[in-house]
Amino acid sequence: MPPDEIEVAYRLRTPPAQLAARIEALLLEQTVELPRSALKSAFVRERFVGRLIDTAPTGTDEFRVRLAQPADAVAGDPAQLINVLFGNCSLQADVELLDVTVPPPLARRLGGPRFGAEGWRRLTGVRGRPLAASALKPIGLSAAEAGELCRTLALAGMDVVKDDHGMADHAHLPFAERVRVCLAATAEAAQTTGRRTLYVPNLIGAPETVRRQARQARDLGAGAVMVSPMLVGLPFFNELVRDLGQPVLAHPAFGGAQRIDPVALLGKLFPLFGADAVIFPNSGGRFSYGPELCREIARVLRAPDHGAPSALPVPAGGMRVENAPAVLEAFGPETMLLVGGSLLDSPDLETLLARGRQFVAAVHAFGRTS
Amino acid sequence: MPPDEIEVAYRLRTPPAQLAARIEALLLEQTVELPRSALKSAFVRERFVGRLIDTAPTGTDEFRVRLAQPADAVAGDPAQLINVLFGNCSLQADVELLDVTVPPPLARRLGGPRFGAEGWRRLTGVRGRPLAASALKPIGLSAAEAGELCRTLALAGMDVVKDDHGMADHAHLPFAERVRVCLAATAEAAQTTGRRTLYVPNLIGAPETVRRQARQARDLGAGAVMVSPMLVGLPFFNELVRDLGQPVLAHPAFGGAQRIDPVALLGKLFPLFGADAVIFPNSGGRFSYGPELCREIARVLRAPDHGAPSALPVPAGGMRVENAPAVLEAFGPETMLLVGGSLLDSPDLETLLARGRQFVAAVHAFGRTS
Repeated sequence: MPPDEIEVAYRLRTPPAQLAARIEALLLEQTVELPRSALKSAFVRERFVGRLIDTAPTGTDEFRVRLAQPADAVAGDPAQLINVLFGNCSLQADVELLDVTVPPPLARRLGGPRFGAEGWRRLTGVRGRPLAASALKPIGLSAAEAGELCRTLALAGMDVVKDDHGMADHAHLPFAERVRVCLAATAEAAQTTGRRTLYVPNLIGAPETVRRQARQARDLGAGAVMVSPMLVGLPFFNELVRDLGQPVLAHPAFGGAQRIDPVALLGKLFPLFGADAVIFPNSGGRFSYGPELCREIARVLRAPDHGAPSALPVPAGGMRVENAPAVLEAFGPETMLLVGGSLLDSPDLETLLARGRQFVAAVHAFGRTS
Repeated sequence: MPPDEIEVAYRLRTPPAQLAARIEALLLEQTVELPRSALKSAFVRERFVGRLIDTAPTGTDEFRVRLAQPADAVAGDPAQLINVLFGNCSLQADVELLDVTVPPPLARRLGGPRFGAEGWRRLTGVRGRPLAASALKPIGLSAAEAGELCRTLALAGMDVVKDDHGMADHAHLPFAERVRVCLAATAEAAQTTGRRTLYVPNLIGAPETVRRQARQARDLGAGAVMVSPMLVGLPFFNELVRDLGQPVLAHPAFGGAQRIDPVALLGKLFPLFGADAVIFPNSGGRFSYGPELCREIARVLRAPDHGAPSALPVPAGGMRVENAPAVLEAFGPETMLLVGGSLLDSPDLETLLARGRQFVAAVHAFGRTS
């Protein structure tokens, strides 16, 4: 692609006879939003109107259509990039966003992963094997319960324990108290295990709230944070990561609602906007992604365009402790494996500890054999 | 509803035999994210688990399901509200968000429309008839072209001229210059018409960018602004409107991608988060909403829950000047009628002026006869 063009692929549902007209309408809708006849200015026609790259049939009355849109239209702005990719045409039911490749200057401007997969390795000290991760759930835990749970998961040997993404600044357990208690719990467990689990607090809210939480997390000593980019908004997510100084784990909440291919959204756009690791719902759990789709998300996260740092794939969502070896086999060592409900559904803390150790042992064993 | 519950309706596609289990899973997924057996704390079970209100079949293997979720789970946070409504379940293809009603304390916390339909009436001085509005397009206009276009639309008698929602801080025409030129154009036209057209600049970007644009717009004298809540993120939109001191026109870009009923998203959530007027793609244009859906969006905007100010419906999107009377008939006087491409596809400025006057005359005539 020329350095001044964004390549974007859509699935268009249209009869073949109307394909050319439909493509022309889509091409114009996403930048100038006017028919070509209404474009009086040569500057506009030359600089703000894209072009068709190619089309390929993908089914009956269904085509994959690749467009090149002028990077000038985006003005280097993260919100306007989303608008050019899928602003108005998101309102058109016959269009689905399949793929996007931005030119290197725009990718640099957005910044991509600041720390990438390597940032998680450095923070946890884990090399040559997957990372074992679990989650603090449910919302509603008291400070004592959250601390106890975090300590138990740390004692089980988890590399990472993250908050549930619904943990906000609740009256019964304010954000700063939660972070303080959980960091104390991982420190305490480290005196037994000899290795400190990385606790990853969830930031959620409008920008001023999230920025306050980020400052509190950093001041209290949290080494990384979690954010749901679609909940807080992709442009704010991108602005936030510039100032964080910590690796960011991205959660997909509110992200599946889009008519956007999950590989494009979670595999490409999340890291482009700054995610260092990306949670996605693994096949076989409570969500609807198939195994091939999940492997493709992981592949794209590990092999970004333009030599940007790779981001760490984090398959999650209804995985069972017993299935860990199969999941490890599917995703390989460059993975953070996240198990939540299946562990937390233990009848008591001793069982949780034992099952947590079983999960961690499976992850370590895979590292030795893979 | 009790004051501590959020009522939320989904469409669930599931065989009847699995409905009860599917509802239980959805109910838990959206707050505690754990099976009931894993909820050890009585506080969690009592305060963070919702309940089923009712279900009704809506088709073969398809049900409308109403849940009551505890407001405590939201912690008064706009991002966490979206998460509880449609965070994880957005990743489940069998779920669509149909409707939402928040309890009055949460509605007050979010704030709703600050100015509402009345704010637009006060700013424009228009009473007893619809407002006539048009758009500055395309992106790529020079300062001189933008000014000339704005002046012509103002001379035609438009009550409101808004930026295209893709107008960002472009190098060839920075935001502040665009606002300055357009405000000068409406002032100049007012010397001829005797009435000043309200120019509404588009704010777009990450939060720091948008806040800078908002300050510039206010300092330069813009009376209202436009924002696309789904592009900038609903939580930031909600935070922004608190500080604006100006009516906000909400644009639906990136909003159609959701598996959310447009009445719920554009008619309910946009004003709940602070929109004073809401653009939606009218039937018959380039978008896929039917006439009944559009009338229902307008009805809900005008009749919000809990006595909040009504927001002004703004049907738009591929409307033709010639169809204005029919559209006016469909929507009535409490409407801002927005015409863009059909006007701007005029061969020259004189024709644009004449067609603009024709549109404005139709709007005024409707006001006299309705």
